[in-house]
Amino acid sequence: MAKYVYFFGDGEAEGRGDLKNLLGGKGANLAEMTSIGLPVPAGFTVTTKVCTEFYKNDRNYPAGLEEEVNQHLAKVETLMDKKFGDTKNPLLVSVRSGARASMPGMMDTVLNLGLNDETVQGVIAQSGDERFAYDSYRRFIQMYANVVLDMDGDILEHILVKMKEDRGVEEDTALTAADLKEMVGLFKNKVKEELGHDFPMDPKEQLWGAIGAVFGSWMNFRAITYRRLNNIPAEWGTAVNVQSMVFGNMGDDCATGVAFTRDPSTGEDYFYGEYLINAQGEDVVAGTRTPQPINKAKHQPGDLPAMEDVLPDCYQQLDKIRDILEKHYKDMQDIEFTIEKHKLYMLQTRNGKRTAKAAVKIAVDMVAEGLISKNDAIMRVAPEQLDQLLHPSLDPDAHKTVVAKGLPASPGAACGQVVFSANEAEEAAKIGLKVILVRVETSPEDIHGMHAAQGILTARGGMTSHAAVVARGMGKSCVAGCSDIKVDYANQQFTARNGQVFKQGDVITLDGSTGEVMQGQVPTVQPELTGEFGQLMEWVDGIRRLRVRTNADTPHDAQVARDFGAEGIGLCRTEHMFFEGDRIAAVREMILSADLEGRKRALAKILPMQKGDFLGLFQVMKGLPVTIRLLDPPLHEFLPHTDKEIEALAAEMKVPAQNLKAKVEALHEFNPMLGHRGCRLAVTYPEIYDMQVQAIMEAACELVKNEGFSIIPEIMIPLVCEVKELAILRANAIRIADEVVARYGVEVTYLIGTMIELPRAALTADVIAHEAEFFSFGTNDLTQTTYGLSRDDAGKFLPFYVEQELFPTDPFVAIDQEGVGQLVKMGCELGRKTRPDIKLGICGEHGGESSSVKFCHRIGLDYVSCSPFRVPIARLAAAQAVLEEL
Amino acid sequence: MAKYVYFFGDGEAEGRGDLKNLLGGKGANLAEMTSIGLPVPAGFTVTTKVCTEFYKNDRNYPAGLEEEVNQHLAKVETLMDKKFGDTKNPLLVSVRSGARASMPGMMDTVLNLGLNDETVQGVIAQSGDERFAYDSYRRFIQMYANVVLDMDGDILEHILVKMKEDRGVEEDTALTAADLKEMVGLFKNKVKEELGHDFPMDPKEQLWGAIGAVFGSWMNFRAITYRRLNNIPAEWGTAVNVQSMVFGNMGDDCATGVAFTRDPSTGEDYFYGEYLINAQGEDVVAGTRTPQPINKAKHQPGDLPAMEDVLPDCYQQLDKIRDILEKHYKDMQDIEFTIEKHKLYMLQTRNGKRTAKAAVKIAVDMVAEGLISKNDAIMRVAPEQLDQLLHPSLDPDAHKTVVAKGLPASPGAACGQVVFSANEAEEAAKIGLKVILVRVETSPEDIHGMHAAQGILTARGGMTSHAAVVARGMGKSCVAGCSDIKVDYANQQFTARNGQVFKQGDVITLDGSTGEVMQGQVPTVQPELTGEFGQLMEWVDGIRRLRVRTNADTPHDAQVARDFGAEGIGLCRTEHMFFEGDRIAAVREMILSADLEGRKRALAKILPMQKGDFLGLFQVMKGLPVTIRLLDPPLHEFLPHTDKEIEALAAEMKVPAQNLKAKVEALHEFNPMLGHRGCRLAVTYPEIYDMQVQAIMEAACELVKNEGFSIIPEIMIPLVCEVKELAILRANAIRIADEVVARYGVEVTYLIGTMIELPRAALTADVIAHEAEFFSFGTNDLTQTTYGLSRDDAGKFLPFYVEQELFPTDPFVAIDQEGVGQLVKMGCELGRKTRPDIKLGICGEHGGESSSVKFCHRIGLDYVSCSPFRVPIARLAAAQAVLEEL
Repeated sequence: MAKYVYFFGDGEAEGRGDLKNLLGGKGANLAEMTSIGLPVPAGFTVTTKVCTEFYKNDRNYPAGLEEEVNQHLAKVETLMDKKFGDTKNPLLVSVRSGARASMPGMMDTVLNLGLNDETVQGVIAQSGDERFAYDSYRRFIQMYANVVLDMDGDILEHILVKMKEDRGVEEDTALTAADLKEMVGLFKNKVKEELGHDFPMDPKEQLWGAIGAVFGSWMNFRAITYRRLNNIPAEWGTAVNVQSMVFGNMGDDCATGVAFTRDPSTGEDYFYGEYLINAQGEDVVAGTRTPQPINKAKHQPGDLPAMEDVLPDCYQQLDKIRDILEKHYKDMQDIEFTIEKHKLYMLQTRNGKRTAKAAVKIAVDMVAEGLISKNDAIMRVAPEQLDQLLHPSLDPDAHKTVVAKGLPASPGAACGQVVFSANEAEEAAKIGLKVILVRVETSPEDIHGMHAAQGILTARGGMTSHAAVVARGMGKSCVAGCSDIKVDYANQQFTARNGQVFKQGDVITLDGSTGEVMQGQVPTVQPELTGEFGQLMEWVDGIRRLRVRTNADTPHDAQVARDFGAEGIGLCRTEHMFFEGDRIAAVREMILSADLEGRKRALAKILPMQKGDFLGLFQVMKGLPVTIRLLDPPLHEFLPHTDKEIEALAAEMKVPAQNLKAKVEALHEFNPMLGHRGCRLAVTYPEIYDMQVQAIMEAACELVKNEGFSIIPEIMIPLVCEVKELAILRANAIRIADEVVARYGVEVTYLIGTMIELPRAALTADVIAHEAEFFSFGTNDLTQTTYGLSRDDAGKFLPFYVEQELFPTDPFVAIDQEGVGQLVKMGCELGRKTRPDIKLGICGEHGGESSSVKFCHRIGLDYVSCSPFRVPIARLAAAQAVLEEL
Repeated sequence: MAKYVYFFGDGEAEGRGDLKNLLGGKGANLAEMTSIGLPVPAGFTVTTKVCTEFYKNDRNYPAGLEEEVNQHLAKVETLMDKKFGDTKNPLLVSVRSGARASMPGMMDTVLNLGLNDETVQGVIAQSGDERFAYDSYRRFIQMYANVVLDMDGDILEHILVKMKEDRGVEEDTALTAADLKEMVGLFKNKVKEELGHDFPMDPKEQLWGAIGAVFGSWMNFRAITYRRLNNIPAEWGTAVNVQSMVFGNMGDDCATGVAFTRDPSTGEDYFYGEYLINAQGEDVVAGTRTPQPINKAKHQPGDLPAMEDVLPDCYQQLDKIRDILEKHYKDMQDIEFTIEKHKLYMLQTRNGKRTAKAAVKIAVDMVAEGLISKNDAIMRVAPEQLDQLLHPSLDPDAHKTVVAKGLPASPGAACGQVVFSANEAEEAAKIGLKVILVRVETSPEDIHGMHAAQGILTARGGMTSHAAVVARGMGKSCVAGCSDIKVDYANQQFTARNGQVFKQGDVITLDGSTGEVMQGQVPTVQPELTGEFGQLMEWVDGIRRLRVRTNADTPHDAQVARDFGAEGIGLCRTEHMFFEGDRIAAVREMILSADLEGRKRALAKILPMQKGDFLGLFQVMKGLPVTIRLLDPPLHEFLPHTDKEIEALAAEMKVPAQNLKAKVEALHEFNPMLGHRGCRLAVTYPEIYDMQVQAIMEAACELVKNEGFSIIPEIMIPLVCEVKELAILRANAIRIADEVVARYGVEVTYLIGTMIELPRAALTADVIAHEAEFFSFGTNDLTQTTYGLSRDDAGKFLPFYVEQELFPTDPFVAIDQEGVGQLVKMGCELGRKTRPDIKLGICGEHGGESSSVKFCHRIGLDYVSCSPFRVPIARLAAAQAVLEEL
């Protein structure tokens, strides 16, 4: 006989962690926790097979299911020592859906199922808290009416709102037990009025209603759409989890808490967590009460009493569980627990989120402890996270005026102008301002502002509050629960502990590692890369195949990148040099010249400066490869655009404003991204690239002559769409380069190659490779053209696309492997077909994003190039790519 | 022994027309003409093999070559009854290069070779014209010094210019025999001064010098570059053609002329040509003298004497040759001939250029005459040429004031403002003005202006003048040799025969079919498609597989297209409807609405108008398929942009100008081509497409209800880059469409598909096909994105690219088969893989260009769609594509 229901509880489970297909993700996880001996509230899982058969048999349950459910329910009753529907000591359960992967649009959760007018009396008796009992009851009715009975959620919510108005209170918590009892009555009447039948009072009827609602939701419109968009077959089905409720808010012998098996901020190996007596789980994370530490390991004077002292038995049991968990999952765990009348229940365990510092330390420590291998350690650190480690922290010697202190919720220093809303933060960031977002507490609606801000400061909430968790995920500095400050939204200001007032726009500095809030800007120092970091990167470099270069235009950036492990420069953008200092004057003179001679005169002024730039870069890179991209942007980018700016420049250049204006107008483009730029400029004005090639080669020759070492410059011609462009410009470049080399009489070799950044270049890469010794995939522009999407304009709809999951991620952040990536792959294959030893790299911003780096590894690129601070990320991702292939 | 030299002359040739690889194009052609019995001036071809061996053997000629050349030269002497280097009756020769395909950068021609201080006396004796003899001599020195001795052409030209100054004359022709004799001396001295040795006086030395120069030019820089860019192997080599000179300007028993075996303008079957007594070939085409007709077939009172009367023997011989040529080449020929002292020589024959009308008539006539097959006839008409037949001509009933009459050089009516230079023509066309280019005569420097103009009017030149030939090729109206007008460039005006003055900007009308020039604008009528055209298109339709639809947004355009044979609408651009009349007000109201309700209110106003549009189109198309593209352009295109326009609109709409301006600024895009448009608009504002789908379906339903016939609307969603966009919008469209159909209670089916116009769409077409019942390739935008080239901005460099042959043609005119075409092909294959019966078409402007249409046929599209006037072109190209496959 088929088995449809799997039990878990009291250290024994019929399922296992690897039975996700049968039990769904949630069910498998509950079985796993139970089977390793954790005190999980007992329950059972109705399998995905039931769902599949349900739909196969015209929405009928398989024979025997009801009996199996009843048997398992009885077992739960026995274990929990409660009875479903009992008026003295009733068992309440939660019902949750659980597919293989969590799926929006499906019924989520019904809590407190089993309550009715009789069983609520039992809860009152057990808890001694009538208000708690009726609050649970009215919540149950609300949830059940909405998700099971399919009533519009606003209908009952409106009754609640109205009652608060009538009572003249603002918070739900201000309603009394009597109020809530009355509300239960009102809810039940309303349900009858709306649906034409009574709210079900029979707990079994409630249970089957909820199970049916889970299966029904598998075929609702949103779920079907989601599956279609994500290629999930309908046959997978969903499971249903029925689990006994436990309560941490039934009195002072109850508690609830969250903990990490190691410190998620530093990675230190001690048991780190918070709890609250007589509370529900949501009270801990919501930040409405300040939680207490679970142990005294880091106790400081003034801290609230630790669980270790208050509930020592439970603490000891929990500490043992900590050990079991780390040995079993071989990773730091994030756990939720509840204590109901001195009895400990584990509600959840999962791999804990952590800071980069913690991730690195935990991974390296666990290798030392023999828990995991070096390869495991490499896989344990999310490459993007490293970003947190690579940014500056406060200069310890700097003078600082601390005006408040909160919790060190997410490490790193941040400095900026104070703003008080997420929208303001976003607006300010758009115009290039650095801001600190200050809130009483944050919520999911604030995410975009947190993204835009340098750091986050909240007045309320603990280390596991929304602000703290999200900021750590983002690698942003965060000081949370800073009760020293009083936030006054109405007046757009906050007051520090000494009464000092900070208005919107005032500058403050946060230290997310200490929790300190300082007035003004405090100097910072470069991050000290800890021993664990160095150790991990050593393992990483031992394993990766992909080289990592950097995008750098200045000796300073080049040096930073080398310190981070860059193995060359993959993209030096020469136009950045055109903007600097007085060269922009010469550049403008060139653009305004009416003829070739005039342009050449102006270019001759730029030549020595460009040469100096290249010399500087070459000296830093000491023999490592340096790829230099010749001028790329359209000429109008070097000219002003408003009438006022034009007039000012005309006066400065001593030319009639009318002439300058006419030139600006003549150069105007409707779509500059697709305009007269890149090699197209050089086809019409070859003298520009001639000057640049001369500067590069003279610098390289002088290096050999004066410094005694050599580099191989890689001269890169951008925006090629047709091989003939490259053929002509390459012939020119060779002519100039060979002239310079002959003139200096030294040995310097050089390569000439191209960016592959237009679809046509990728599609015809076999032909282009005849004229190119290397390809560098410019995936920024390639993404723009492949999608037909202007990065500068996409802000109006791209966030919506990502949010609605039309795009899995922003294609400018992670390379679109299906479309853009297909072109890159094609370009590689075609290029190698013509020239087997062609050098292949990528220099778009994707070169520093881990999924993109891994893609580059898989398609066989030689190197990626990224901004200096992302070099370690790319190194780590490149190593993970190797391991993922095993 | 290897044979290196091939003789031709006196009806016998050692070579043949199909020996192009060995003899080069020119040599093979001369051999062919000779062997079919034409009196070709005798000569010989040094083969391409010599060139190849020359380079293989370190620039040494193969053994025996000199002897072979001498033998053949002697044979030429015998035949021509002249002797090379003779002082009494010298043989002069031309030396020309001739590779398989003509190649820029190579040595072209040296004429009159064999002249020196002694042989010039023989020429004087033979011609009795000392001036002619010395003019030939000085031209020879100039040419030889430049192309063989590699002297800068300006050096000798400068002596010529100075002498004209000294003599106070402007034209070369004003110099006397004595002047020219003196010039020969000056030239020789200058050559010695520049090169350090005498100009070679030995004719044999001259000959070998010229042969060596041809071979040498095969390896010069320009030729090498050209070969590399065009994939021509160096091994091909070039041949050298040495041919005896003949002169039509040695007295009144000499003549020269050009002729067509049928009328190139109408296609009528009579011998059509012009000649001049005592003249050189260039005199006929230059238009400096007005040529005389060769026969009296179309003689009109006042015409100059015909060759038929003046040189009857030669004419009879020529008329026989005409017959031989048509029987041999089975096509109308364009011939050049010269009569030297009553002896007829054929210098050239080639397939004659002709008007579309002539091409069609000749092809159809030749089928009737049994010369060619129907399939041959189809291949004989260049599809692009048909354009000429499809445009309006003057309304015969219209009142017209003829102010001048010239030659009917290229048919069709044209009307526009007078301009006097090619540059002005181009400038005016850029801002949308229609112009008539008026010149004394045209030259190759005027091509761009002729392109830009509606028509061309010249005061000088015959039916074979530059203006006439080029205009016919372009399908532009042209009146040539209009001696009624006096052109005054200095005052930017021309005077007509009645003394009436036309200034720049005055409007005139040309009738290129009658030669009439009229003042003002004269009404036109639609072209009457002649019987031959109808016959040809009947053959065409019998053979083609590809369907031809039209791009049309109005019932009028749709009707024109149907009359031209369109089989449906492939692209109806709904945004054009948004601009019309008072709907633009509603569109603006929608854009300015702050919320969904406001937008819906405004859209409700547009709905009935859109519905009316669709009804109109459906009624014209009577059951043929109609593809309707939903709104595509970014919203800012519907708003004004200058402050002044914004203020005016704000006043009209009664909204604050500030609000309107803010909206315009908010909608501004850096790269609108890649911006918030197409389906992206509908993802953010679904209500727009909802309205359009409702309008389409209501129109379709009303058609069934009221007219009793049905069409299948094809609803097309533009700018999809990701299947999820299409999935969402398609689901919406189905919902709306099914609602409408249910409401009307009729049977209407519809298709939903997408444009494939972004590289990513083509690359992921297999996935997209799951949501699309048809694809229409939007190759305009696909070309822009694949090349990264904005059509609006490319004017700054694209013409240069085409001129420099970086691009073989403008990729917006003919589809780039290598890059863009590869994506289209990929899109087809992937689409069919997922959905074998998917409908595939193209709706970019390429759909009406013949090479693109043929490409579409080859890759298996179901249809092309093009503008109404190009429908016959596409039909013809589609048929040719079938024949080219055989």
